[in-house]
Amino acid sequence: MHMTKPKPKPSTTGRSAVAVDGDIKAGNLRRLRRIEGQVQGLQRMIEADRYCPDILSQVASVEEALRGVSRELMRNHLKHCARKALRGDVAQGDAAIEEILAVWTRHAR
Amino acid sequence: MHMTKPKPKPSTTGRSAVAVDGDIKAGNLRRLRRIEGQVQGLQRMIEADRYCPDILSQVASVEEALRGVSRELMRNHLKHCARKALRGDVAQGDAAIEEILAVWTRHAR
Amino acid sequence: MHMTKPKPKPSTTGRSAVAVDGDIKAGNLRRLRRIEGQVQGLQRMIEADRYCPDILSQVASVEEALRGVSRELMRNHLKHCARKALRGDVAQGDAAIEEILAVWTRHAR
Amino acid sequence: MHMTKPKPKPSTTGRSAVAVDGDIKAGNLRRLRRIEGQVQGLQRMIEADRYCPDILSQVASVEEALRGVSRELMRNHLKHCARKALRGDVAQGDAAIEEILAVWTRHAR
Repeated sequence: MHMTKPKPKPSTTGRSAVAVDGDIKAGNLRRLRRIEGQVQGLQRMIEADRYCPDILSQVASVEEALRGVSRELMRNHLKHCARKALRGDVAQGDAAIEEILAVWTRHAR
Repeated sequence: MHMTKPKPKPSTTGRSAVAVDGDIKAGNLRRLRRIEGQVQGLQRMIEADRYCPDILSQVASVEEALRGVSRELMRNHLKHCARKALRGDVAQGDAAIEEILAVWTRHAR
Repeated sequence: MHMTKPKPKPSTTGRSAVAVDGDIKAGNLRRLRRIEGQVQGLQRMIEADRYCPDILSQVASVEEALRGVSRELMRNHLKHCARKALRGDVAQGDAAIEEILAVWTRHAR
Repeated sequence: MHMTKPKPKPSTTGRSAVAVDGDIKAGNLRRLRRIEGQVQGLQRMIEADRYCPDILSQVASVEEALRGVSRELMRNHLKHCARKALRGDVAQGDAAIEEILAVWTRHAR
């Protein structure tokens, strides 16, 4: 498992991760490329007026695959960003906890 | 709202819908094209080592958009396939109900 | 499987089901009594300052049990109320479909 | 906000929390008592053969209330148990992260 320290990229706006595990990153890119293919497949199924329960079954598969992506993102976040913040001072730790809970609220069923 | 009767397509395998509302179909294709773009955006965020909670927020948006697709697929299924089956004999109706419940079980949280 | 025709109960306000399968009703009452016990158990775990992941695991079990209740309620609804409405005129059928979709939206993840 | 250090209770089996915030504990007990009442209400609705979509709406309310309990349990876990573990050595921190991910997997939709 190697880790890549994100380097500032001039063309990228938005916050960066503290660190990203190379294997988590590679796994998520692989998952998302497969998901992209599944979403294209869903479009073909709809174009072809396929049977709705069959399409719904494929949608559920995409959702399961996305849950895999979320879990690995949360793993990386806890291992690097959250761990670093929770080892810092109380205010930093509390802010990190509130942020995890906001993610939880959006993803918990 | 116009309805398209699916015609047999030689290259398409799999069961067909009884009927598909043109507006549901167009809406779902529009949603899925946007979802495809979002999934590509997720890949770019991961490539750029973006902050995990920001990526997780985008994943949640994709999941919400997929729920819109599922709801419209269920709407079409109920309007056409399920309605037809439930107006048929008891065995047909029962089979249609079991099928809806199988979809429910896979999608209910 | 026997079916009970709900009789008007003077003390009950609110709409009634078209019909309720006796076995679905008995199964749901059994599930809910067990869920009530689990919810009491959760209170005891919290009183005893039990380890949070252990309590969270119990909460997930309650949620799974509630999904069983929901699925059986949907089964009864489709078998009786929705089937009757979908065999009626178009306006009745459309109203029944919208109602099922509203339930779906609230329960689909 | 006061914190109660859980004291060993002879009659209680199972692991204890590192610490529990008094306000989180009180809030969760209040939520669970209300949930217990809602579960009893569900039994009465089923006894009275109430309209299934109305019962399903109540089930959704119970599920929402349980998500509130889960979120506060996770808040307490992160503030005390997980924070302590993540401030410890790498092996402790990694074990704590795996445990949070197991909870996530069970609760994420």
